[in-house]
Amino acid sequence: MDNDCIFCKLRHERILGECEDTITFIDSYPATPGHTLVIPKRHFPSFFEATEEELLAIGKAIQKAKAILDKEFTPDGYNIGINVGEAAGQSVQHLHVHVMPRYKGDVEDPRGGVRWILRNKANYHDLKKHDLKKKNVKKHEKNS
Amino acid sequence: MDNDCIFCKLRHERILGECEDTITFIDSYPATPGHTLVIPKRHFPSFFEATEEELLAIGKAIQKAKAILDKEFTPDGYNIGINVGEAAGQSVQHLHVHVMPRYKGDVEDPRGGVRWILRNKANYHDLKKHDLKKKNVKKHEKNS
Repeated sequence: MDNDCIFCKLRHERILGECEDTITFIDSYPATPGHTLVIPKRHFPSFFEATEEELLAIGKAIQKAKAILDKEFTPDGYNIGINVGEAAGQSVQHLHVHVMPRYKGDVEDPRGGVRWILRNKANYHDLKKHDLKKKNVKKHEKNS
Repeated sequence: MDNDCIFCKLRHERILGECEDTITFIDSYPATPGHTLVIPKRHFPSFFEATEEELLAIGKAIQKAKAILDKEFTPDGYNIGINVGEAAGQSVQHLHVHVMPRYKGDVEDPRGGVRWILRNKANYHDLKKHDLKKKNVKKHEKNS
């Protein structure tokens, strides 16, 4: 428990579910309808510090959150994501796993998914095409 | 094992680590230096279908990957991410967890992290400021 941590003092009305080790609740600034967070009850910043018991509890809580969100929001997919460290965009220093329902057409081209965190590095499908073209050029050069 | 799945027939030289249930290897189109994937050995598309044994094994494999990448790349942070379904950007239908080392300055403003998957919904810190302004206006109205 950290008295300065907003996730250590959640209001009960925001809580969707909980177990011995985790709490699940709706994000205050949802990126998509149903955007949910799963947190450990213990206060620590990083996924890399979770105990084996917490790793399993978090995994199961994510699966349970999905079952609830499926019924409530019937999304077409999900992104699951964690930021570790300021350089990765973490703002609250209490581990939280984002479970973001996704809907067809919510972005123009969803391919790449979590790669979009890096903006201009997300478009790897065009890189793949480029690779293919290079290979074809080489093949052609070899044959000629 | 699915004969058409690229992750069911990985080349050995790409593998960083493995356990009974998982394999860890470097992504072919890294979004950042050290971009790594953790997959279950069993072929199935979604995190939501993982057994408890696989959930724990995946969690531990992510923690082990981080220890290797810290030594090799000394990054400043990490994003961990999963795409479930085409609407969420999933292209290979074999569950894979992205472990992406992050480096100071690799994007102009990293705040929001995984929220950037939704592009224009990532900038929640400005929303927060906006909320704060609204609250201040209300406070002012109340007081006046």
